[in-house]
Amino acid sequence: MPREGTTRAARRASRGAGLHQLPWRLLRNPYQPIEVVSADQLEAIHQTSLRILSEIGMDFLHPEALSILAEAGALVQAGTERVRFDPDWIVEKVSTVPGSFTLNARNPDHNVPVGADTIAFATVASPPNASDADRGRRAGNFEDFKNLVRLAETFNVIHLFGGYPVEPVDLPPSTRHLDCLSTVVTLGDKAFHAYALGKGRMSDAIEIARIGRGVSADQLRQEPSLFTVVNTSSPLRLDGPMIEGLIEMARMGQVVIATPFTLSGAMAPATIAGALAQQNAEALATIALIQCVNPGAPSMYGGFTSNVDMRSGAPAFGTPEYTKAALAGGQLARRYGFPYRSSNACAANAVDAQAAYEAEMSTWGAVMGHANLIMHGAGWMEGGLTASFEKFIIDVEILQMMSEFLQPLLVDEATLALDAIAQVGPGGHFFGAAHTLERYESAFYSPIVSDWRNFESWELAGSPTAEQHANRIWKEVLEAFSPPPLPEDRAEELVDFVERRRAEGGVSA
Amino acid sequence: MPREGTTRAARRASRGAGLHQLPWRLLRNPYQPIEVVSADQLEAIHQTSLRILSEIGMDFLHPEALSILAEAGALVQAGTERVRFDPDWIVEKVSTVPGSFTLNARNPDHNVPVGADTIAFATVASPPNASDADRGRRAGNFEDFKNLVRLAETFNVIHLFGGYPVEPVDLPPSTRHLDCLSTVVTLGDKAFHAYALGKGRMSDAIEIARIGRGVSADQLRQEPSLFTVVNTSSPLRLDGPMIEGLIEMARMGQVVIATPFTLSGAMAPATIAGALAQQNAEALATIALIQCVNPGAPSMYGGFTSNVDMRSGAPAFGTPEYTKAALAGGQLARRYGFPYRSSNACAANAVDAQAAYEAEMSTWGAVMGHANLIMHGAGWMEGGLTASFEKFIIDVEILQMMSEFLQPLLVDEATLALDAIAQVGPGGHFFGAAHTLERYESAFYSPIVSDWRNFESWELAGSPTAEQHANRIWKEVLEAFSPPPLPEDRAEELVDFVERRRAEGGVSA
Repeated sequence: MPREGTTRAARRASRGAGLHQLPWRLLRNPYQPIEVVSADQLEAIHQTSLRILSEIGMDFLHPEALSILAEAGALVQAGTERVRFDPDWIVEKVSTVPGSFTLNARNPDHNVPVGADTIAFATVASPPNASDADRGRRAGNFEDFKNLVRLAETFNVIHLFGGYPVEPVDLPPSTRHLDCLSTVVTLGDKAFHAYALGKGRMSDAIEIARIGRGVSADQLRQEPSLFTVVNTSSPLRLDGPMIEGLIEMARMGQVVIATPFTLSGAMAPATIAGALAQQNAEALATIALIQCVNPGAPSMYGGFTSNVDMRSGAPAFGTPEYTKAALAGGQLARRYGFPYRSSNACAANAVDAQAAYEAEMSTWGAVMGHANLIMHGAGWMEGGLTASFEKFIIDVEILQMMSEFLQPLLVDEATLALDAIAQVGPGGHFFGAAHTLERYESAFYSPIVSDWRNFESWELAGSPTAEQHANRIWKEVLEAFSPPPLPEDRAEELVDFVERRRAEGGVSA
Repeated sequence: MPREGTTRAARRASRGAGLHQLPWRLLRNPYQPIEVVSADQLEAIHQTSLRILSEIGMDFLHPEALSILAEAGALVQAGTERVRFDPDWIVEKVSTVPGSFTLNARNPDHNVPVGADTIAFATVASPPNASDADRGRRAGNFEDFKNLVRLAETFNVIHLFGGYPVEPVDLPPSTRHLDCLSTVVTLGDKAFHAYALGKGRMSDAIEIARIGRGVSADQLRQEPSLFTVVNTSSPLRLDGPMIEGLIEMARMGQVVIATPFTLSGAMAPATIAGALAQQNAEALATIALIQCVNPGAPSMYGGFTSNVDMRSGAPAFGTPEYTKAALAGGQLARRYGFPYRSSNACAANAVDAQAAYEAEMSTWGAVMGHANLIMHGAGWMEGGLTASFEKFIIDVEILQMMSEFLQPLLVDEATLALDAIAQVGPGGHFFGAAHTLERYESAFYSPIVSDWRNFESWELAGSPTAEQHANRIWKEVLEAFSPPPLPEDRAEELVDFVERRRAEGGVSA
């Protein structure tokens, strides 16, 4: 079906609701990925990662992981947490990872397929600070958390809640996950992330997802409905709480994303090839553990390799090295048939040109690396230390533009427009042509932030910057927000569960 | 030779000179281009463009073009300026375009090969206004012109002067080209563009290029040393002054870039496929004219298709449609074996996030479309109405990042770093590892604008934005500028020529 027709109706609908944005749509990447390493180079990285795992090994800081791995045939060094892996064993263990799955949302219209050429965008996750142009930067709090959830629910280009969009440090750690996740399920109806911080939080999260969807535990086990990111403590270490979360999620058939934190020059070698070899080793070992727990459990390969500023040691993001690593990470994931996760990251302190060009370098690397999930899609600043309300809106524009870029170019008799060109003829113009008027509403992407007025009109309007437009937009969205419907029985069950677990004291912090 | 070694020495050298930037280097694109249309779709666009030229035709508003085309076998409609082209004739005529050539600079170290997988960046060209953060926007003038030339000469990532970086409207039109081009040759030593605004200006430009290089007219004819952009007055018209310039340049063996001005929804159909078909028709006919004048003359295919804002009619740049058109333009150029030209364009009024994300969308389309020449590489704002000093510096950062992205990833035993990973081991860090220290200076791209300090240090420093950093940088560059050496005899010959032509009254405006 021609894109123009469907989009036009959808745009009218969203305009009617006050906010002019793209409709909800699932994305597929129609383009060949950019390959930054040759087949031989890819093989060299793979082989080096296998040697890392067999010759050096990796530490798993939890006895349950050690016993699971030992039982499955990995080589646990007696009296230590060090595990070494036979290359053939690793390759065989990870072969049970499914190439695709669906993340089920409590609103089935918001289910997200993951794998092959799909792309989904998730919100920023985990910053300890929030920021906006009016009030500046402050410690993360529950009010900002809720407002960022409202933005994420409103914008159709955001497919998933990628984690807490800001860490609400004003909530007690033992029950914070209960407040946060029940809020996500109440203010939002998209699929979501929960943190792998021990078994208790994980099982609470799974129960909240189950209640939100109104399904049985058995059905939930068959239908992935939440995901967690398991970061290694690079180099070559996986911590206890992450391991507990991983085991619980894998047993329950939920999605685990193995994302090594390989900052080149700090937690990984100061060469991208070396950082990729280490990333690959850590990801393979983590995914092998998932598959030992539950063969066939949905797992993803996370690429997060970036580099530090060598002069200060500060992490940098959206660098040329980051872009290459994101593209190479996709090649590695595809080598094994894993769904792939990357990020829209930047190191900027201000919502300025730097924030945008670093976000673009990250996003192009992620999209053309065929990432299936792009974490931190909207709102991330300062290498992840701050969630910015204005950057959230700027990123929505960047993601919407990417979403449009991914719509295949339509080439047929109508779009080739030979008749229109003949009708207008040399020296004419197309403003009033029937071919143009028929497409008036829907011909091109219509931005939410970009200011295309001429200089004089723009100056008369007060010379607003993109940041100022973004500031206006997020306030308008929050003003107009109303939560998506949640059936009363589920809402009650959710409150009951949260209050019971709160009364029990939540989890031990 | 490993990249690290060579780059380190070059970076030290440039640091010694006060400005920390990448060294001069010629770029080659090591990646496969992104293809947005299938082979069948490409053929449909090609066939439609041939039908446009045979059924509708194109107007050439100069008798000399009409007689050249008629003599070569094109079908000139008697008593009109309309020319129709037999499809086979067009395809055969453009087959003599050379696939590559070298643009010769007056400093041979700055010669630029063009064709196949080369990429070169040129400055912004032709805005009627200049702007900076201190003084705001003003009409173009010769002082701003000279300062922008100084910036373009200083930054190694800029390979070519793409035209007047701002139009100096304070200079009389009849001699403006003499002042401008002699200034480019005096303050700069890179190859340059001259405007196709009639035969007189063109032959003056060619003489200035000849004097600058200190070669004979015969040698210049064998060695392309300047280039001109010939814009069609879309739809399907080529104006007289452009034609005169084209003929003069082609006769003298200099480079002509045929760039249709196909703004979708205004001067071209409101569909990208239609705009591309029209772009292709106009480019093919213009290139055919070049080849009729001088078979084998260096010619380029220019893609400039963008779209208007349908609500206001304002031109938009760096849109998703622009990116797709830039990529498809590359596919079309490669179909015929033409070198390809694209642009780094944006519609922003402020040097803000919009300016950066639109510039990135344009530049990614150009680079991954395998453009050999990226015009307006640094400084373009407001759809070409203003040259901004701060945007120039931001674009230098964007181009430097792209230049680094295009350096192939080195994967070998040293970079795979198995020994370093073994030495550091699980839970350690790489800050002090020998493998890291050996690469301290050169491991990663070191930015000129990006501020990677932590928030607290950045705030203490006054919370500078990218625009403010750019403001500081261009002033430092101008403060430190000294022109490249020009042999005394050439300098004298240049002055003599300009003064003689000035005394003659220049060209009739």
